[in-house]
Amino acid sequence: MRLYILAIVCFFINVSLQGQELEKETRKAVVELRELLSIPNNGLNAKDIQNNIDYLSKAFAKRGFKTQEIETLSNPLLFAEWIISDDKPTVLFYMHLDGQPVDKSKWDQADPYTAVLKRQNDNEEWETINWTNIAGEINPDWRIFGRSASDDKMPIVALLHSIDNLNKGQIKCNIKVILDSEEEMGSVNLAAAVKNNLDVLSADALIINDGPVHISGEPTLVFGCRGITTFHLSVYGPVKPQHSGHYGNYAPNPAFRLAQLLASMKDEDGRVIIDGYYDGIDLDDNTKAILAAVPDSPDNIHNLLQINQPELVGTNYQESLQYPSLNIRGLKSAWVGAQARTIVPDIATAAIDIRLVPESDPDRLIALVRNHIESKGYLILDREPTKEERLNNPRIATMIARGASLPFRTDLDAPISNWLKGAIKSNFKKDPILIRIMGGTVPMAPFIKALNVPAVIVPMVNADNNQHSPNENVRIGYITNAMKTFRAILTTPFDKR
Amino acid sequence: MRLYILAIVCFFINVSLQGQELEKETRKAVVELRELLSIPNNGLNAKDIQNNIDYLSKAFAKRGFKTQEIETLSNPLLFAEWIISDDKPTVLFYMHLDGQPVDKSKWDQADPYTAVLKRQNDNEEWETINWTNIAGEINPDWRIFGRSASDDKMPIVALLHSIDNLNKGQIKCNIKVILDSEEEMGSVNLAAAVKNNLDVLSADALIINDGPVHISGEPTLVFGCRGITTFHLSVYGPVKPQHSGHYGNYAPNPAFRLAQLLASMKDEDGRVIIDGYYDGIDLDDNTKAILAAVPDSPDNIHNLLQINQPELVGTNYQESLQYPSLNIRGLKSAWVGAQARTIVPDIATAAIDIRLVPESDPDRLIALVRNHIESKGYLILDREPTKEERLNNPRIATMIARGASLPFRTDLDAPISNWLKGAIKSNFKKDPILIRIMGGTVPMAPFIKALNVPAVIVPMVNADNNQHSPNENVRIGYITNAMKTFRAILTTPFDKR
Repeated sequence: MRLYILAIVCFFINVSLQGQELEKETRKAVVELRELLSIPNNGLNAKDIQNNIDYLSKAFAKRGFKTQEIETLSNPLLFAEWIISDDKPTVLFYMHLDGQPVDKSKWDQADPYTAVLKRQNDNEEWETINWTNIAGEINPDWRIFGRSASDDKMPIVALLHSIDNLNKGQIKCNIKVILDSEEEMGSVNLAAAVKNNLDVLSADALIINDGPVHISGEPTLVFGCRGITTFHLSVYGPVKPQHSGHYGNYAPNPAFRLAQLLASMKDEDGRVIIDGYYDGIDLDDNTKAILAAVPDSPDNIHNLLQINQPELVGTNYQESLQYPSLNIRGLKSAWVGAQARTIVPDIATAAIDIRLVPESDPDRLIALVRNHIESKGYLILDREPTKEERLNNPRIATMIARGASLPFRTDLDAPISNWLKGAIKSNFKKDPILIRIMGGTVPMAPFIKALNVPAVIVPMVNADNNQHSPNENVRIGYITNAMKTFRAILTTPFDKR
Repeated sequence: MRLYILAIVCFFINVSLQGQELEKETRKAVVELRELLSIPNNGLNAKDIQNNIDYLSKAFAKRGFKTQEIETLSNPLLFAEWIISDDKPTVLFYMHLDGQPVDKSKWDQADPYTAVLKRQNDNEEWETINWTNIAGEINPDWRIFGRSASDDKMPIVALLHSIDNLNKGQIKCNIKVILDSEEEMGSVNLAAAVKNNLDVLSADALIINDGPVHISGEPTLVFGCRGITTFHLSVYGPVKPQHSGHYGNYAPNPAFRLAQLLASMKDEDGRVIIDGYYDGIDLDDNTKAILAAVPDSPDNIHNLLQINQPELVGTNYQESLQYPSLNIRGLKSAWVGAQARTIVPDIATAAIDIRLVPESDPDRLIALVRNHIESKGYLILDREPTKEERLNNPRIATMIARGASLPFRTDLDAPISNWLKGAIKSNFKKDPILIRIMGGTVPMAPFIKALNVPAVIVPMVNADNNQHSPNENVRIGYITNAMKTFRAILTTPFDKR
């Protein structure tokens, strides 16, 4: 019976927020976002960051938050908290206030830090419209163009304005917010700062609001991201490039040997055939069903990439992301094109990246690749071979690995996951899209590990937002949805058990 | 009995020329070579070429030759002839008077066109010595440093001075000499000029005096050279580079596919495994014995190249040159090193050269490679694929082939070959080194084809002459040997049947 009443209340709130009130709040959020976008936020400029912190400190304080700056080795972080009640669970939201640097000359507006409102005309061109249009009926497809419109200032503003429409009694959790100031620089100082402030940041759940929702535009929960490690593999031929007439057919060609090594690592469909590479990854039927349920359109992806067939590591796009990759990101030996010379090259190099999943320890994968290369008769060094080494070894390679950025993945049945699924479902009247792991890498793993709390990414912006590029933008309809999403999260009780 | 007397006469001549007379003639040749080297000979400067032609016209005329310039589309050629008797066979000598351009700053002497005489001191450094040293006892290891000292002015001077020591009665052939003026620019106008002057140039044998003798320093006959053809092979992935997080394991990686294609063309020992690639090449025991008899030192080659093992196309260095090569001379996809980016590249390209032998028609080999690539499921284009082609074909490559420079090879038992082998043996008291085909490509094939005469390369200069490079040089002992070689050729009757 109580549940029944609660459901009616929730429904009422939703209805009211889907209507005029929500449009009114969207208007206010647009005004505040426009203001916030006018403050440049290049992480390399400490003054930029401080200006954003000052603005946002006031904005959070206005909503009753207690704020403080958290020192790091570089730019400070902004922390804000609103403790509703000690017996409520605490949710920590992570967002970032810094943005990618801009090259003004490449933007279709005078200043990337002076946001403009645009709509698409009948020729699918973006034309600027007056901000006064916001006062009338808002078209959710209009967009705000400016640096950090989507990455990552909109979610911050949406959180503030969702709170503006809630009273303390509606909010079912204590709210903590950490605003990163160096996300676009890799958040290299974040984890250490967290470790120094574990009491301040302690929480029961971490929600990361960054990145785009699924391309379909539907509410999306992302339960993890792949990590990355990289290495360079070089194969050695003669000590110097040799005349291909004098030595073609005699001097070992390092480019052919590198090709043979690389070819031996994968089958024709792109699956790694090094023994053990996919060990530990076992997708059960339930997991496969979750992956298959994501409304990716192969036709759309193939059309976008202009490919006929994908690699077949998984049977669909989401499944392919559950496995570590082994990707040649660059290849070089001597010259091609007009610079090509009639030589047997001295060296051939492949730059490789491996996207990691939780089952694939980077050291283990690198060791597997290394053992595979050794099994082909190679001496593997971490520097140029000496003359003696060259004379005494038929096959020589170098493998230079760089550090890894680790993956994270939260169980889809964990309490935080069920809570968020329920919150979205009851507020949007549909199941969210569940992304078990996203393909890209967010440098969050050390931060999450330092906090030691379950984490889920709740993205908020449109996928076609030109993130990191000129003409970054956010669709206005996504601001409304972001506020709805925050409201859903804040008003749905989280049972952390 | 007559043969016996002839042998004695020859012996007498040799003895006398190996002694003081030869040293005296070497002195004179050095003086003339020094003069000739003082005339710059960059083929790009018509005036340079004309100055060399003027000097050499006089030099040949002084020896009783009739000279004329032969027009080409560019620099003229210098032709000289001395018809001894209509009933004698005619030998045409090919040499070139032009030289590679110079970068003075890279030479260890003030001016590459002001030759200097050097000897190696106890620290193996080259030190300049006074030209007056030539008047005393000549050390054959002294060297003359200057542009074209070895490539190719020394042979011209050696021919002139060998003639200075012969009377008309001793010379067993009519002598024709064609001096190329654009060899370093690829002799692109030579064949056409020859075709316009077939009567003038008609001969029974063509001797090409260019390039170095075998590294052992022994008299060398080279019966051919490999040709060359080249192509670029590109494999296509997504239309633009894609984020390796979002699309690693899904977007087909063109670098891996290129590696797989290339790897499928050769075995681990460097042998081409495309069916038919080596068709027509059948080295009989006699040929194998000739190849094995060349005193190449694998240890020396391996030490020079700093390799442990060669490819195994042939069982020795000379044998490997009897086969067409398939050499990756360049490889490129996206970036390696500091520029490497976390992408799935859009394209991967290999630049390949094929050294040709007479059995390997370039069109046939290119077709074999093409068929091989098609057999792997590729659509092969000669331009970028369209969007439609990308969407409709799982594997797309381009193959852009460029024209070929053809090989030539004269039978080692042809009359010209037996004549030259005999001439060297009787004059040097040892068999010459027989190079069935050299690995590099000399653009002589169209010239030889236009003349339609059997041709053999009789090289004259030291292998360590820094040809085409700064500090080009010739060892003085090789001048003496060159004069001996010309004398051997001119005084040994050629039976052209």
